[in-house]
Parts: sequence; structure tokens; C-alpha cells
Amino acid sequence: MSQRWVRFSHAGNTQFGTLEGDNIQVHTGDMFNNPVKTDTVLNINDVKVLMPAQPTKIIAMWNNFHALAKKLNLADPAEPLYLIKAPNSYLNPGETIEKPPTDEKIVFEGELGIVIGKTAKRVSEADALNHVFGYTVANDVTVADILFRDSSFPQWVRAKGLDTFCPFGPVIATDLDPTILVVKTILNGDVRQDYPISDMRFSVQQLVSLISADMTLYPGDIILCGTSVGVGSMKPNSTIEVEIAGIGKLTNSFK
Amino acid sequence: MSQRWVRFSHAGNTQFGTLEGDNIQVHTGDMFNNPVKTDTVLNINDVKVLMPAQPTKIIAMWNNFHALAKKLNLADPAEPLYLIKAPNSYLNPGETIEKPPTDEKIVFEGELGIVIGKTAKRVSEADALNHVFGYTVANDVTVADILFRDSSFPQWVRAKGLDTFCPFGPVIATDLDPTILVVKTILNGDVRQDYPISDMRFSVQQLVSLISADMTLYPGDIILCGTSVGVGSMKPNSTIEVEIAGIGKLTNSFK
Repeated sequence: MSQRWVRFSHAGNTQFGTLEGDNIQVHTGDMFNNPVKTDTVLNINDVKVLMPAQPTKIIAMWNNFHALAKKLNLADPAEPLYLIKAPNSYLNPGETIEKPPTDEKIVFEGELGIVIGKTAKRVSEADALNHVFGYTVANDVTVADILFRDSSFPQWVRAKGLDTFCPFGPVIATDLDPTILVVKTILNGDVRQDYPISDMRFSVQQLVSLISADMTLYPGDIILCGTSVGVGSMKPNSTIEVEIAGIGKLTNSFK
Repeated sequence: MSQRWVRFSHAGNTQFGTLEGDNIQVHTGDMFNNPVKTDTVLNINDVKVLMPAQPTKIIAMWNNFHALAKKLNLADPAEPLYLIKAPNSYLNPGETIEKPPTDEKIVFEGELGIVIGKTAKRVSEADALNHVFGYTVANDVTVADILFRDSSFPQWVRAKGLDTFCPFGPVIATDLDPTILVVKTILNGDVRQDYPISDMRFSVQQLVSLISADMTLYPGDIILCGTSVGVGSMKPNSTIEVEIAGIGKLTNSFK
């Protein structure tokens, strides 16, 4: 059965548990390794919801959806192409994506995140899902104007690494079939992205296996699967939501 | 007066202190915030030396030395160009850089590391050095063959992010003038790099100021200043050393 895990702050303590309706069943121990259910139940409206994991790294895919590749006239890549989101970019659900003091174009990218549950080093495709804890929702915010303004060095890490540019959560959902998920991104109430995960160039199993061949993945690490068509820019004082039915909705303001 | 800080494991505990000759004056508390000297002195030969900090991120510069830019026919960049070294690449001094199972070309890059001491967000050049704790030595190991094999996306993060590809330490030296430092890289006893920090395109002050305009830098975070001429490949069973007089020597094997 799919469980929906959340991390939160309550009465000065950071805790975690499973969400059913508005109720959080508090657990103790390690979310990724035999968490222990307690008798405590809290209402989600009485806590501050935090990002659901504390990744040692978030790896973000580029060019992983056929529809976007077709639109941009990009070839299918032979191997996963990715960057790392700077840890200073991690942001809690509900918090504000900060507009930089410059007037550059800032774009949203709604994405599915794969949350690692067991240390993965050179795992096979067949074994990959045994290392996945669950799935979350993310917004891979990007300064579009920075990316290609130096022709000698595309600035992927910098353009996507500004403070607050990686909100994720609020939920990690376990035991889902990712191939049936659909990602919707909603800007000020308008649906701007609405694309199926089944369109991915590299599947969840392939991503975990191929990336773990180079980089050991640790519990809580996240692979952002890349985005598809519908990316657009945000004006200050916007509300941006990314929703994946079966996981949850990530809401942030942009100011 | 310049102090030389080390981090180490002894009798099952992780500790830190200042190094004088072979003696470590053990301190407690926070290395970056008023560490407290204890009465304990240990001999460095009786401890396991660890990487001297635990960065939330290591930022690595590209094209920051005039001599290498001239050799590669690269223009001076208008702004710092950088990537992030994956945390799984961090390696202790004395430990082994692991050859991947493939037969790709693996290169060493000896570099100066700037270690942040105080949280820095949009600091001015004039104020930048107040946020620097000291300087360390690093090897920015890279799979050269991965970098440009996909013409649509240079794979900087991946090529430099393999497990064990970022040894650094053993020492963080404080109160140095970085402009007089010289980086030497020694492969199996042969000096292969020998270049002055004074040749940097962006100074320490400029790097800290400009990077902190986008990304908040935290105590322990490291900026690798980039490398210069003399980069070369390593054969298995090599010993690779990076030495900066006034800081120390970083030694690793490659197998």
C-alpha cells in the first residue's frame, strides 16, 4: 500500500510521519530504515511542513522527455545528462522562492523526484527499484538568462543553484508505479504543464542504475527526472504549484 | 599568525585542532566559531587524518588562470564559471582515488581551495576576506573522456563527480596572503604542475563576492580556484601529490 511520508517541525522538534487525510501518524527513528510508529497523531494544520528529506545531493536531469526534445529539436541523448542543484537552493513547501535583485527571466520547471532509500552504487536496472524509497514533487527553478550567456561554458549549476531555487515536497509517496504519473504545473491558477512520466527517455530504473554507476546515491538523495513542455517564466508575486496526483501538491510563492 | 587546522579520528572520536610540527593541539567546539583550546596534545602519527571540513558544497572554477586560458586559446571569462563537486567525491587525505571500471582517461588538477568561515550572502569584494577562514589543497580529479562526448551538454558535474574524485586537505591554513602561493602537483615524484595563484583571472575576494551574489556560502564550504597548465592523466598504481608551501601537501594513491 502506498504511504505518504512528511517531515515537519512541531513544538521546536523536527519529526516525521505518515499522512492520512489531515492526520500525521508520528514515527521515530530513520524514515528510510525501519521507522517506528508511535501513538502520537498530529493535525497537519498544527505543524510547519518541511522538505521531506535532507539530501546529500539532488541530481537534476536535462533533456529527459521526448515531447520537450521534439519541441526543442534535440536528439535523444545516449546517456543521462545531469547537473547538481546546490544545497542552498533547497526550499520547504509553502516558502517563498526569492526573486534575485536582477531583472533576469526566472522560469519554473515542474518535475518528479525519485527519492533514494538504500545506498546505491553500481546497481543493475533490475535491482534499481529496491533502492528507491518513493517519489516526491519538485520545482527546478532556473534563471534562464544565465544559462547560455557565456558561449564557452553553459552555466547549468549556477542558473539552477540560486538560494530557494529548489522547493520540493511536501510528501514522499511510496509503492507507486511512476509510469502512470502525470505532472501538472499551475501558475497563478493556470495549468501550464501537464505531461506524462511515461514519456521519459530514461526510466526510473535506468536513471538509478546509470547514475549509480558513477556516483553513489545515499538514502534521501533525490534524482529530479527533468521537465517537459510548458516551461514558462514567473512574474513577482506569483503563486506556483506543482501537482502529481498520487503524491501531492507543492505550493510556493515567488516574490 | 597563520594557524594550520586539521580534523582527525582518534580512539573512535572525530576531533580537530591546530598542527605544529607533528603535534596537534586539540580544540573543542566549532572550528569556525571560537574554538576552545584543550590541554590535550596528540601526535599526528597516532591519528587518522580526515578531510579538514565537511562542506555543504564545493564549488569548482573553470578557466580561472591566464596561463591555461592562453594555452587553450580561451577568452577571459566575464564572470566566474563554475560547477559543483558531488559530495560522494569528497575524499580524505591519504586515501585512494578509485579508478572506475572503464578505461577512460583520468586527469589530476591541483588546486587551491578557499574555505569559508562565516556565512556569506551578497558580500562585497571589500568585505569578502572577512568571510574566509583559510585555505586548503585539493585535487579536482576528472574523467576527461566524459566531458565533451555529448555535444549537446558538456558533462562537467558528472565528469568531476565520481566517488573519491575530490580529495582535499590535510590542512586549512589561516591568515595567509593567497596571492603569493604556488601550487605544485607531483605525479609519482615528477613535478607536473607548478603555477602561481597570482595568475588568477578572478581573485579570492572577487570569487567570494561574485559567487555569494547567487549562492549563500556557509562555514566549511569550499571554492576550488581552478587549475592551470600541466594537467595530465594518471595510470593505475600512481601516487599523486598536490603541495602548496605555507599550507601543506595532499597525498593520494590512484588505483
